[in-house]
Amino acid sequence: MQRNLFTEDHEAFRELARDFVEKEVVPAYPEWEKGGRMPREVFEKMGALGMLGMAIDEEYGGGGVPDYRYNVVLQEEAARALVTLSTVRTQLEVILPYFLHYANEEQRKRWFPGLADGTLLTAVAMTEPGTGSDLAGMRSTAVRDGDDWILNGAKTFITGGMQADLVIVVARTSTDPDNRRRGLTLFVVEDGMPGFTRGRELEKMGCKVQDTAELSFVDVRVPAANVLGEVDEAFGYLGHNLPQERLTVAVGSVAQARSAIAAAIDYTKDRKAFGTPVASFQNTKFELAACSTEVEAAQAMLDRAVALHVDGELSAPDAARVKLFCTEMQARVIDRCLQLFGGYGYMMEYPIARLYTDARVARIYAGTSEVMKVIIAKDLGL
Amino acid sequence: MQRNLFTEDHEAFRELARDFVEKEVVPAYPEWEKGGRMPREVFEKMGALGMLGMAIDEEYGGGGVPDYRYNVVLQEEAARALVTLSTVRTQLEVILPYFLHYANEEQRKRWFPGLADGTLLTAVAMTEPGTGSDLAGMRSTAVRDGDDWILNGAKTFITGGMQADLVIVVARTSTDPDNRRRGLTLFVVEDGMPGFTRGRELEKMGCKVQDTAELSFVDVRVPAANVLGEVDEAFGYLGHNLPQERLTVAVGSVAQARSAIAAAIDYTKDRKAFGTPVASFQNTKFELAACSTEVEAAQAMLDRAVALHVDGELSAPDAARVKLFCTEMQARVIDRCLQLFGGYGYMMEYPIARLYTDARVARIYAGTSEVMKVIIAKDLGL
Amino acid sequence: MQRNLFTEDHEAFRELARDFVEKEVVPAYPEWEKGGRMPREVFEKMGALGMLGMAIDEEYGGGGVPDYRYNVVLQEEAARALVTLSTVRTQLEVILPYFLHYANEEQRKRWFPGLADGTLLTAVAMTEPGTGSDLAGMRSTAVRDGDDWILNGAKTFITGGMQADLVIVVARTSTDPDNRRRGLTLFVVEDGMPGFTRGRELEKMGCKVQDTAELSFVDVRVPAANVLGEVDEAFGYLGHNLPQERLTVAVGSVAQARSAIAAAIDYTKDRKAFGTPVASFQNTKFELAACSTEVEAAQAMLDRAVALHVDGELSAPDAARVKLFCTEMQARVIDRCLQLFGGYGYMMEYPIARLYTDARVARIYAGTSEVMKVIIAKDLGL
Amino acid sequence: MQRNLFTEDHEAFRELARDFVEKEVVPAYPEWEKGGRMPREVFEKMGALGMLGMAIDEEYGGGGVPDYRYNVVLQEEAARALVTLSTVRTQLEVILPYFLHYANEEQRKRWFPGLADGTLLTAVAMTEPGTGSDLAGMRSTAVRDGDDWILNGAKTFITGGMQADLVIVVARTSTDPDNRRRGLTLFVVEDGMPGFTRGRELEKMGCKVQDTAELSFVDVRVPAANVLGEVDEAFGYLGHNLPQERLTVAVGSVAQARSAIAAAIDYTKDRKAFGTPVASFQNTKFELAACSTEVEAAQAMLDRAVALHVDGELSAPDAARVKLFCTEMQARVIDRCLQLFGGYGYMMEYPIARLYTDARVARIYAGTSEVMKVIIAKDLGL
Repeated sequence: MQRNLFTEDHEAFRELARDFVEKEVVPAYPEWEKGGRMPREVFEKMGALGMLGMAIDEEYGGGGVPDYRYNVVLQEEAARALVTLSTVRTQLEVILPYFLHYANEEQRKRWFPGLADGTLLTAVAMTEPGTGSDLAGMRSTAVRDGDDWILNGAKTFITGGMQADLVIVVARTSTDPDNRRRGLTLFVVEDGMPGFTRGRELEKMGCKVQDTAELSFVDVRVPAANVLGEVDEAFGYLGHNLPQERLTVAVGSVAQARSAIAAAIDYTKDRKAFGTPVASFQNTKFELAACSTEVEAAQAMLDRAVALHVDGELSAPDAARVKLFCTEMQARVIDRCLQLFGGYGYMMEYPIARLYTDARVARIYAGTSEVMKVIIAKDLGL
Repeated sequence: MQRNLFTEDHEAFRELARDFVEKEVVPAYPEWEKGGRMPREVFEKMGALGMLGMAIDEEYGGGGVPDYRYNVVLQEEAARALVTLSTVRTQLEVILPYFLHYANEEQRKRWFPGLADGTLLTAVAMTEPGTGSDLAGMRSTAVRDGDDWILNGAKTFITGGMQADLVIVVARTSTDPDNRRRGLTLFVVEDGMPGFTRGRELEKMGCKVQDTAELSFVDVRVPAANVLGEVDEAFGYLGHNLPQERLTVAVGSVAQARSAIAAAIDYTKDRKAFGTPVASFQNTKFELAACSTEVEAAQAMLDRAVALHVDGELSAPDAARVKLFCTEMQARVIDRCLQLFGGYGYMMEYPIARLYTDARVARIYAGTSEVMKVIIAKDLGL
Repeated sequence: MQRNLFTEDHEAFRELARDFVEKEVVPAYPEWEKGGRMPREVFEKMGALGMLGMAIDEEYGGGGVPDYRYNVVLQEEAARALVTLSTVRTQLEVILPYFLHYANEEQRKRWFPGLADGTLLTAVAMTEPGTGSDLAGMRSTAVRDGDDWILNGAKTFITGGMQADLVIVVARTSTDPDNRRRGLTLFVVEDGMPGFTRGRELEKMGCKVQDTAELSFVDVRVPAANVLGEVDEAFGYLGHNLPQERLTVAVGSVAQARSAIAAAIDYTKDRKAFGTPVASFQNTKFELAACSTEVEAAQAMLDRAVALHVDGELSAPDAARVKLFCTEMQARVIDRCLQLFGGYGYMMEYPIARLYTDARVARIYAGTSEVMKVIIAKDLGL
Repeated sequence: MQRNLFTEDHEAFRELARDFVEKEVVPAYPEWEKGGRMPREVFEKMGALGMLGMAIDEEYGGGGVPDYRYNVVLQEEAARALVTLSTVRTQLEVILPYFLHYANEEQRKRWFPGLADGTLLTAVAMTEPGTGSDLAGMRSTAVRDGDDWILNGAKTFITGGMQADLVIVVARTSTDPDNRRRGLTLFVVEDGMPGFTRGRELEKMGCKVQDTAELSFVDVRVPAANVLGEVDEAFGYLGHNLPQERLTVAVGSVAQARSAIAAAIDYTKDRKAFGTPVASFQNTKFELAACSTEVEAAQAMLDRAVALHVDGELSAPDAARVKLFCTEMQARVIDRCLQLFGGYGYMMEYPIARLYTDARVARIYAGTSEVMKVIIAKDLGL
């Protein structure tokens, strides 16, 4: 269905992104999958092309165009080519907003140029072993010591944790018995700070071109200048960006589901069973028609949500609805598309297999489908 | 999710419609259900309020505002009150377009005032016993005889057929072996024309406030002045309005699904099981959250399609996608909502039971889900 | 899949049942649907043929064969002919067990002959307005007064309540603060007892050939001789028969789903769309193959459960699983089969429409799907 | 639900299997996953314990008990421990039957001892690149040359192909224009025969402890003594074993789904979210109750099918139904169970992730769900 989300500027950026993906990502992707990450120089190439700093002010080397739709375009073009851009999505949509909103002038000068040109890779360390998404139950702590803070804690499921130069770590700095939501602070831990070590890299079912790490902080001395935002106020910061975090998952889900359909159409037109192209079976047609219908519904919902988000009007429950619908849709659609590949769908050399294993996490991270339902039910007054 | 489809004019019309529905429809609805139709005087009241002629030129007594969104508002307000407006939907969205597009000046003068003021009720007689939606296989015929045509045939599944003053009948007027799509013509048969009889009223599972009839035409002499559009060209006419016919089904599906959720929320907050309100069970919350999510996806898709339709840019395959998605969604959502009513959901005095039986036809009429998939698959190049 | 549940005796009974259904039920069924019940003389015919008293001792005019499989055969043969046997199922499988287990010798003599020959129709009045299936919250009471009990209360959703000669009414006879499950008693209220009145007949979505009533008991004087079982001990009685009540619903669900498939096969072979039999479309084949698969799974599960039940070894959680699976399966299968009928599936003259509206209650009565899940989850140690 | 499939002998074998799996398989499994196979010595240990030769005559070192239920027990015990036994399933249930049915006396003497003691590993090479399951379209050929046959062809998707000592290769030996089903022959190609080479090992989504290979045969000289069964008659042989091949997939699907539920119960009882065990949420309970219900339905269907198979009475369409239902059930159940693990479900160190990726192939191999539907539809007369 005809979309109405993008302007000519976005479409020009799309050309750039498509070209980049095809030349720099697709040929190298199988290699990256083995290595478990995208090489640093590719981030730098993206930086040089202006893809990482669109939302950063021009004075720090960015594009000065804080328009969420550029992120959408980037994800869509990666998905169209059946690849991902590794941790770029997390960096731009989950982590960069913390810097953009809460960095002070000195921090901007220090970090923004590197964020824009791709030389500074980042991660955010929120989840802890055993506490899941329950922020209030966090056990990492930081204690003031002169001009520094002494940070202790263990974090897990950290996307990009192995490669990150800067890790935003959430830790408890005080306890207010009347307000569980007070007392968390964001610290920017830098690569090389004594006491900061990276543990095991977790082996995931999919999403092979991005590392997921366990990080450990033992008496890490973090200068007060590396506190992001106000001390004790991080709870609100974390909540504030959640709608965008969920929206970005949905963007990927829809784009990848769409791409799975395209791949299945190509495959089934080419592939014969009992002498006839698989695409000519009514079952194939009906399966793909049903998939296409679901994707178009999700796209319409998503585009509307993106438009609201660009206007600053996307509510948290609506972001939850969009994430829930788009990720569940992605699961159904990719599963059905894979089935049309027969045995080849089970072979990792066929991108549909990768789309399938990548997709399984979408219903889980940035809040599970169950957490989304909790949020939506509250919004219904239940 | 915040919608962006309507202007202040639509919202003013919505007030009018809501008021009308609450005062004139809701109290009488149980009575109408027993009688199987909405009384003629109610059509006339709607006409007097300007609700039936919005799209008709002012010179014929209409509102002169051919904006599809008024139809959307009308359906939404009926659904919100858990009723329908009987055959009004069919008249405004399926039949009126034939008159608007193909009536000549003389016909406009003759019929438009009555269409606008609700004194002329209409039906369209397309389907025949045994041929279903295969227009090319139609067996009704009309043969020229002087200034008249002699019409013969049998039609079935005719919505509003018992009440109609004017019936647009599709019949074969010639056979072109090279072009199966040529040779159909639209005739406006009037109540009382000799040879035109109404057969049995079909007993449907739901949709009780509208009749569905079998009509018979035996040597009906129809004046040439009652031919609508060009002789032999009706095939194209019928196809042309199909996207709107499908869109209107989707409008009803979404509005009714939304209404089912509201009813289920009210019921489960009020109703206790084992001492606790049903709404407080996590299962209830999650079911309603899932339903709400589906409705919002459908609404976004539908609103986008309506916007395109208003601009004349809704494609037939996209209309098929919208119908497929919205009607399947409606079935899932209403079924889940009904379940939350327990035994009361099975009792016809609870509107949810009516919503359930009404809904079953949505996946069937105006083209079944399977026909939609055929159309969509073609659009995918399959 | 080949079944192994029945012996030659059951198959002989099946012949009898099939013959009866075809001759006595099928031709009259449309008439009964209008009247909302099966005439008394048909119960008497069934009684005369020995169909109602199989489980009753021969000395009281019964067959002396308390084998649950005869009930299965009866339901299967009704379903095969696309009809039901009205309240016979409830009488044989839900109500008769109370009489069989708890009637004393005097009561047996008084009632069993009439139960066996079809002259005594019965109902059980458990549910009350507002309390649903929460037995412990029951508000009907009976107070001892000399040799009688004075019964007061209101009951709803009473299957067969309009026709019943004997109504087993559950009422509270004492309150034990330490044991909510004590204090309920079963009373057999007879037609004509002063103070016993039948209220409105509830209009249901389907199941049109059996009445569902509201019953009212105002100072009804019930002789102590009409107490069934021990005073205060009914809670356990009610629970004891629940597995069979759920099993019998499942028996009907599987048989009706199977019958829907047979009807859809017949219809689609006969019916043409665009010149081809609907049965020849791959979608039709796949839909029916999927339906057949589901029915065979359900049948295997059910047959195993029936075999365990015959041996007295069916656990309550397994009965819950069987009811949950078979009724959910029925809903899916009948919905898919109906779809293959196109517009005709929405017309009540096609039995598939009746199967559809009948089916909706199966997921609700005898414990909703949600209640089944509660029971099963407990069994899983959750 | 209580099962009735096994005797004491099977249960004794179950103890043996359970013990073996726990001691020899579970501790080493992560290692095997990395290596992509189970070491040869483990096959030999199984052979020594009599697990591989149950169905082989005692004179050749087997157990002399050709009872399919031992295979069921073996799969169930592996699944219970959340592992697989690599290619053992294929060897026992897919390949061994060819040897048992078609080997002549000389071949029995040559191969059966090694098959029984685990020193001869096997594979069957049927599928070819591009032809899928269309046997009649096979392009591998063998031409008679003196006492030998000269075999040429390429095979793909060969389970166990890298490790196999004996490969049963299907090749065309003649062409009968009137009978496409004639002309295929089974050849036993031995490791080391000149011209037989193993190509790439295919990287699969899951099933990591078994290799899947491409095999190439270039002018392989196979002695006539290595022809299995009659020349030109293999088509029937291949079809004959298909019901068992499908049944064995279903056995694994049910056992693994059951195991996933057990794992999810354990996990959710242990794991807390927001201070409460995940198992105490109603959603968790209902999800697991629904899963348990599905598994019990599948188990009942499967057990019935196994009983029929043991009696030689399982029809091909019923085997198709069982495979279709059990594998689709497995997919649904494991997906739902995984979801309850949250982020941990996506980590390969949790067996649920392995169950998920292993499961995806079950709807594909031994005939896809679509092929099953084709078979079932034919059985329905469609």
